[in-house]
Amino acid sequence: MDETELRGMLEGVRSGRVPVDSAVSEIKKLPYKDMGFAKVDHHREIRTGFPEVVFCQGKTPEQVRMIVGELLNGGSNILATRADRNVYDEVLKAAPDAEYNAAARTIVVRRRPGEPSGDKVICVVSAGTSDMPVAEEARITAETLGNKVETLYDVGVAGIHRLLSNTDLLQKANVIIVVAGMEGALASVVGGLVDKPVIAVPTSVGYGASFGGLSALLTMLNSCASGVGVVNIDNGFGAGYLASLINRL
Amino acid sequence: MDETELRGMLEGVRSGRVPVDSAVSEIKKLPYKDMGFAKVDHHREIRTGFPEVVFCQGKTPEQVRMIVGELLNGGSNILATRADRNVYDEVLKAAPDAEYNAAARTIVVRRRPGEPSGDKVICVVSAGTSDMPVAEEARITAETLGNKVETLYDVGVAGIHRLLSNTDLLQKANVIIVVAGMEGALASVVGGLVDKPVIAVPTSVGYGASFGGLSALLTMLNSCASGVGVVNIDNGFGAGYLASLINRL
Amino acid sequence: MDETELRGMLEGVRSGRVPVDSAVSEIKKLPYKDMGFAKVDHHREIRTGFPEVVFCQGKTPEQVRMIVGELLNGGSNILATRADRNVYDEVLKAAPDAEYNAAARTIVVRRRPGEPSGDKVICVVSAGTSDMPVAEEARITAETLGNKVETLYDVGVAGIHRLLSNTDLLQKANVIIVVAGMEGALASVVGGLVDKPVIAVPTSVGYGASFGGLSALLTMLNSCASGVGVVNIDNGFGAGYLASLINRL
Amino acid sequence: MDETELRGMLEGVRSGRVPVDSAVSEIKKLPYKDMGFAKVDHHREIRTGFPEVVFCQGKTPEQVRMIVGELLNGGSNILATRADRNVYDEVLKAAPDAEYNAAARTIVVRRRPGEPSGDKVICVVSAGTSDMPVAEEARITAETLGNKVETLYDVGVAGIHRLLSNTDLLQKANVIIVVAGMEGALASVVGGLVDKPVIAVPTSVGYGASFGGLSALLTMLNSCASGVGVVNIDNGFGAGYLASLINRL
Amino acid sequence: MDETELRGMLEGVRSGRVPVDSAVSEIKKLPYKDMGFAKVDHHREIRTGFPEVVFCQGKTPEQVRMIVGELLNGGSNILATRADRNVYDEVLKAAPDAEYNAAARTIVVRRRPGEPSGDKVICVVSAGTSDMPVAEEARITAETLGNKVETLYDVGVAGIHRLLSNTDLLQKANVIIVVAGMEGALASVVGGLVDKPVIAVPTSVGYGASFGGLSALLTMLNSCASGVGVVNIDNGFGAGYLASLINRL
Amino acid sequence: MDETELRGMLEGVRSGRVPVDSAVSEIKKLPYKDMGFAKVDHHREIRTGFPEVVFCQGKTPEQVRMIVGELLNGGSNILATRADRNVYDEVLKAAPDAEYNAAARTIVVRRRPGEPSGDKVICVVSAGTSDMPVAEEARITAETLGNKVETLYDVGVAGIHRLLSNTDLLQKANVIIVVAGMEGALASVVGGLVDKPVIAVPTSVGYGASFGGLSALLTMLNSCASGVGVVNIDNGFGAGYLASLINRL
Amino acid sequence: MDETELRGMLEGVRSGRVPVDSAVSEIKKLPYKDMGFAKVDHHREIRTGFPEVVFCQGKTPEQVRMIVGELLNGGSNILATRADRNVYDEVLKAAPDAEYNAAARTIVVRRRPGEPSGDKVICVVSAGTSDMPVAEEARITAETLGNKVETLYDVGVAGIHRLLSNTDLLQKANVIIVVAGMEGALASVVGGLVDKPVIAVPTSVGYGASFGGLSALLTMLNSCASGVGVVNIDNGFGAGYLASLINRL
Amino acid sequence: MDETELRGMLEGVRSGRVPVDSAVSEIKKLPYKDMGFAKVDHHREIRTGFPEVVFCQGKTPEQVRMIVGELLNGGSNILATRADRNVYDEVLKAAPDAEYNAAARTIVVRRRPGEPSGDKVICVVSAGTSDMPVAEEARITAETLGNKVETLYDVGVAGIHRLLSNTDLLQKANVIIVVAGMEGALASVVGGLVDKPVIAVPTSVGYGASFGGLSALLTMLNSCASGVGVVNIDNGFGAGYLASLINRL
Repeated sequence: MDETELRGMLEGVRSGRVPVDSAVSEIKKLPYKDMGFAKVDHHREIRTGFPEVVFCQGKTPEQVRMIVGELLNGGSNILATRADRNVYDEVLKAAPDAEYNAAARTIVVRRRPGEPSGDKVICVVSAGTSDMPVAEEARITAETLGNKVETLYDVGVAGIHRLLSNTDLLQKANVIIVVAGMEGALASVVGGLVDKPVIAVPTSVGYGASFGGLSALLTMLNSCASGVGVVNIDNGFGAGYLASLINRL
Repeated sequence: MDETELRGMLEGVRSGRVPVDSAVSEIKKLPYKDMGFAKVDHHREIRTGFPEVVFCQGKTPEQVRMIVGELLNGGSNILATRADRNVYDEVLKAAPDAEYNAAARTIVVRRRPGEPSGDKVICVVSAGTSDMPVAEEARITAETLGNKVETLYDVGVAGIHRLLSNTDLLQKANVIIVVAGMEGALASVVGGLVDKPVIAVPTSVGYGASFGGLSALLTMLNSCASGVGVVNIDNGFGAGYLASLINRL
Repeated sequence: MDETELRGMLEGVRSGRVPVDSAVSEIKKLPYKDMGFAKVDHHREIRTGFPEVVFCQGKTPEQVRMIVGELLNGGSNILATRADRNVYDEVLKAAPDAEYNAAARTIVVRRRPGEPSGDKVICVVSAGTSDMPVAEEARITAETLGNKVETLYDVGVAGIHRLLSNTDLLQKANVIIVVAGMEGALASVVGGLVDKPVIAVPTSVGYGASFGGLSALLTMLNSCASGVGVVNIDNGFGAGYLASLINRL
Repeated sequence: MDETELRGMLEGVRSGRVPVDSAVSEIKKLPYKDMGFAKVDHHREIRTGFPEVVFCQGKTPEQVRMIVGELLNGGSNILATRADRNVYDEVLKAAPDAEYNAAARTIVVRRRPGEPSGDKVICVVSAGTSDMPVAEEARITAETLGNKVETLYDVGVAGIHRLLSNTDLLQKANVIIVVAGMEGALASVVGGLVDKPVIAVPTSVGYGASFGGLSALLTMLNSCASGVGVVNIDNGFGAGYLASLINRL
Repeated sequence: MDETELRGMLEGVRSGRVPVDSAVSEIKKLPYKDMGFAKVDHHREIRTGFPEVVFCQGKTPEQVRMIVGELLNGGSNILATRADRNVYDEVLKAAPDAEYNAAARTIVVRRRPGEPSGDKVICVVSAGTSDMPVAEEARITAETLGNKVETLYDVGVAGIHRLLSNTDLLQKANVIIVVAGMEGALASVVGGLVDKPVIAVPTSVGYGASFGGLSALLTMLNSCASGVGVVNIDNGFGAGYLASLINRL
Repeated sequence: MDETELRGMLEGVRSGRVPVDSAVSEIKKLPYKDMGFAKVDHHREIRTGFPEVVFCQGKTPEQVRMIVGELLNGGSNILATRADRNVYDEVLKAAPDAEYNAAARTIVVRRRPGEPSGDKVICVVSAGTSDMPVAEEARITAETLGNKVETLYDVGVAGIHRLLSNTDLLQKANVIIVVAGMEGALASVVGGLVDKPVIAVPTSVGYGASFGGLSALLTMLNSCASGVGVVNIDNGFGAGYLASLINRL
Repeated sequence: MDETELRGMLEGVRSGRVPVDSAVSEIKKLPYKDMGFAKVDHHREIRTGFPEVVFCQGKTPEQVRMIVGELLNGGSNILATRADRNVYDEVLKAAPDAEYNAAARTIVVRRRPGEPSGDKVICVVSAGTSDMPVAEEARITAETLGNKVETLYDVGVAGIHRLLSNTDLLQKANVIIVVAGMEGALASVVGGLVDKPVIAVPTSVGYGASFGGLSALLTMLNSCASGVGVVNIDNGFGAGYLASLINRL
Repeated sequence: MDETELRGMLEGVRSGRVPVDSAVSEIKKLPYKDMGFAKVDHHREIRTGFPEVVFCQGKTPEQVRMIVGELLNGGSNILATRADRNVYDEVLKAAPDAEYNAAARTIVVRRRPGEPSGDKVICVVSAGTSDMPVAEEARITAETLGNKVETLYDVGVAGIHRLLSNTDLLQKANVIIVVAGMEGALASVVGGLVDKPVIAVPTSVGYGASFGGLSALLTMLNSCASGVGVVNIDNGFGAGYLASLINRL
């Protein structure tokens, strides 16, 4: 249903031609576009200030392109995550101005300026070089959602002076995202240094008894520092999104 | 070291009598009181706005009483969690005005008025009656830290109209804590209804394949709704603390 | 043993030429054809109304073709699951009218009309686009077994209005199959909305702490909604089969 | 809100005294009674044909008594599960006619005759004597919901002739519940013998590598027999409830 | 050291020319040949009646060839397991008469006739066609070790008449090996039918909650039938070896 | 049905008074006595040479007494496992000559002499003093089943000379049972020393990362020594039973 | 066999009265005293410098007393771990000078002065007050084995200044034992600060997703700091023993 | 900042030209070079005697080359682990004298002579040929850090005479590294034979219930022999590093 149809129907309600019940029923179904394989949620931007983010894993490149196209019809900005390069190549057909970050595997299309979050900074901290792809996904997500972001990478606890010499950066942040694999101890240390909310992202970086990120996940859930919330393993997007919700309160 | 001693030492530095090195060394050790079995962190209140919270599990009642006494010396408010009644009885000797919540197993001593968090509300939502102890721990924590809290209990997804008829309450909250055991699906549903940060607390309520809260924990970590951060199983305190950090930004 | 031989033997029994014991022994072995690597169960259709379904995983294409050929000799319809395209190519040699569904990885050969299940509808509901292959396997299984099926895809709980605006469809169904990965919360929500049996299928869609579908599996087993039965991760066939058994009671 | 109040309000709507909006709002809240610690779902009986079942684990005896009292006010039959004897003693104060089954730990109050399910039989099969409490919970649930139930206990696969000599009973059942601990193989064997839906209930009976029922649970989920749906470990109630939904289709 | 050298040294001991200490030291080192990357155990055949079996996984083809060559020097028969075809190609250089079984991934070289085990039969039973590679590894191992073996494949419990019509075969066996994946229930059923030792081999056949064979493994360990011993997942060799030890008692 | 009734019925068949069909049906049901809560398997002794063993865990003392009584009616010897002392006290009412082993928690009633197993010895080896209850359960089971048993306790691998100085005992055994908790390494070492079947029993002895016997279980399943079969954690009975089956071949 | 007997036997060998074979056989059996339920290892002190440590868990108080008595006969010092008070009461009968540490659950009997380890210090560091029992077990073990020990308790990473203000203590230690529960991050931080071997002991302190110490265990195994070796959960004794081996090199 | 700059700045402090605050700030940042994607720790060599070891997994070849180049600027020796050959090819551009060990996947660049560890020997023991890559990583690490290393490979417990005939080698070692997969029992046996620290390295060698090294890991953690510290699965580097720390005390 496009806008003309919507107006027509509402005028029918005013004139009594369309019963209220069926109008209600129609409007209730408005918020999404049913594409068969997907129900694209156009109403989401009204509810949450940002359109549906496209999670590409498990979708064909064609499906992603069609969903992106549908969202662009509404004039939205686009954020697509877990996108391989062949997904990006397909998306380019629908959005030639799409930008790709190979490390983070994100696609961004900027069609409208986001409203900036003011001076409040989200700080993304990572333990090692290998954690960078997840950290970058968090950074891009938070920036695309209109936040100022600063990064502090490769400051794992095995050389804690690297972290301690950057406490100024941590202290001035409004929200902190900590990205760490292996034993994931960085979240507890950061959580003990600041009195700001910490979003902890375990990564699957490691081997052996890291069990695909389980070790870092458990570490973060059991953090002896208060004020730490945890998201799924490798879920840089989720951390960036939650940090943005908090930062914009 | 009390304030008089501190002044004496600093004057010694000014006069050259005390070498800078030994002054530095003394001051560095200031922030905590070493009680042998515990190092009570008096500096924490300066850093974070609230004194150390006493986690009673694994401590003897006498140890808890002594730590509480030490903290009260500094004029702090007290929050002690996971306190059995015999711990409370012992704490009463040090703080006759201590209040006990048997369901939440918390002890609170209020010695100074907290600075209120304004109109911003934390909403604590729970799935079932059995989840109440954890929900209450979250509520008391957030209130003790100076926040306005509203509760919405027993609104699990098996009768989703109970939740949907209370969306007004959810929408007006600044931060939402969702407490749920068994399958823990409530966090995802709430997360999809609002655009506020959601702190999810899995509980050990359930049996069989709930594996002591593992089921709810995994559900919440894998939430298809964005904007959900997870704390440890049964960690009502952690959720209340994190929610307070966010609410007071 | 073919029918002529069977008649011969039974007449031998009547005439006393064949001892009862050896006749019993022969008949007991009737129900299957021993192909060396497989014992094809021809008796199954008599017992259950549908011939053995061919599970292709772990079998060579040649083995599948030979089993299909054997089943077709008996005039049966064929359903083969978890079939890669090279299996399909091989099966075409034995059944040129075989149909392949690439998403569901099923092969169907229709040689006799199924007896329709009347007006009773099985509804297949899925949480996300990535869950479609499993949902389609369920749909094709149920349809091949003679049931009317309707589908409702991409209605995960993160945007619960997509589900709630389709409750009419759920209410009119006789049996509901819910297919969901990640946190799998959809089964509980659907189970709370209807008073019909719900067959829940966890999928391996997700990452990190979904642990290959474990998260959704545990969610569904711990469902706080009553009336939910669970099948193996990604077992669309099993759900379709069980739903058909129920729908045809 | 009782019926008189409801009538009054609706007459207010008719006369224009009560605005439609506030009436809608009131009616929306109708379906449950908020008792603070619980929201008792009176609307459930209208939706599903049976009132809310009281899960006693994690509730105090007083909470259970109050919920039962509230449900009895509506004239409902009562089924309470996982009730210890002290819960039963408390419930007797509200319902002197309550019946207790110590093995199954169920409380039943019959206030209105259930509508019988006709001749269709649910058969509850159990593997060993130790599985009886769970089997009995399933039996009592199904009977309380108005079904005819037959039982076949202690027919585990280690002595398979005990099962095979009772296939008549299995064949005439409309739905079969299989309750088994240890290795849980009974569900697969029964599922292979019949063409009726099988609800499998793993139990925590066993030791060592049964890991509290995990072994039986995995066995049942991986059943090579089609047509088996699984519920949570020790969830006799859930199996009885699902079987009843199926049996009454 | 060959036999001549050994004799020489022992005569040196008798004559006093070789000190007892150094003779002891030499003899102690006899049992194996140190190849640097491997210590080939020539003494094993004396101790156990069969030479070391070569487990190829994790060894390079060259290492396998060299070990096989070393063993052949001693005139031994060879059994190599988990051998890919490129390992076989390499082994052919050292043993042109080596035989390869592609399903079982075994290499066999027969240089001396094994002493037959008499009339005592080992029966290898498997649940499904996909379990055949493991079953074949067991069969070949037992045969190479000199036992009579009969096989009964594709008799899983979902169609239990296939098994029951072959009980004669089971009853006449001296030892039974049961190979099954998915839920692995076959071991319990066979164990309940016979009073002979049953060696159960779980396989990794299955998907989802079979967790790579864990489900079948737990089933077999928890078997309610007595007289079942379990080996590692997919360890057809181990089952064949243990069965042979038992069969030759 | 007792023997007189059986004779009567069979004579009825001969005379034509009893139809063959109903005789078959009666005889088919012979093998067990249905006690409601249990189906006691009288036929088992005929099939396997030893009557049903009573597993007491999860049964009430009264149920055990009744089952024992029923078995004694048939003149059987009795072995009951996992029996607490109060079970024993109850069993004494039915069998005043019952013997109790408190460490192994077994009850034995000897009514007929077992046929001895000849000179073939089963050797029960245990790693530590704490493993003795499980080792004793194995010993008593094997002895009750008529085998000669020798024991070798507290010979764990941390002091391997204790084992090596007893290799004579190991070498002369026909079957070896190895009982070990903690890391369970003893099974591999024993398996490497002998060429006899080894039955490995992991125990739950240990703490921390022994995870209730999981560590020892995995060790034994992964044994690098061939010829090791594993039973469930703490399953001394199962090991003794399997060893007896092997020893009596 | 005491020394006199040993001398007698050896003289018998010299004179030809005792055959070499039987002397060898006797000497081989020397190292332990077989008490039936235990083989007490008297030879251990010669091999390792310290007699067998008595692990009391799973032994009866009487068994512990008898083992202690046997060890005291050899004039050894005694260390018994995991001893409840009733074990201690029993041991007092054999060793009235035995000392008990209730927190660490250790019994120590000092009969000979240990040779001191010189100036080299073992430092025991613990994260929280609740970890003290394990830390004390490590301290007492190391001291009883003759080492100088210093302790640094309650310096968990949530308040990292408590640790950093004590780096002098860490730097001067020769070996460091780190005891931590919950997320166990302390081991990585300490490991990054020093260049000495770190023995990490995870404890079972925590709740929920600490899974009985699994979280801390995985953290320590995955430590991003090099130079960390891990012992079993709660194994304070093992850490103290290993630290002593290292400290005395 | 190089030494000249450092001198200049410190002279500025002396002369009052450079404020103390900014000097402090500069010096604080000295220890590492921030390369954006990595913070290379130049200070580490001063703290620990050996420069940062480069863990290549998860880094691009270019990142590794740049880090190696940066470290070489400081004149350090280089050890890079988990390096594929394409990483090596890239490193050759920065260090043509780099040596590659394909089995161990290590890169070594020797620019300065290490100070030798004297006569003290580290012995690396491995259970099987397949464990060699991990054992070699340990050997190369220890040698690169300046230690004397001896190896004893393929001495798993299934043929324990291979180990026992080499006890001399074990006894003369100062520290022992034990590398074993499958059931990992070798560590306990070695730990029982010697009174030296044992570093145990579980490997992922095995299949089925070895669960990627979990089995060997648990075995080693639960070792009944005292004096065993465990590192992560396949962590040959960590074992070599820890052994070196101990060996050089």
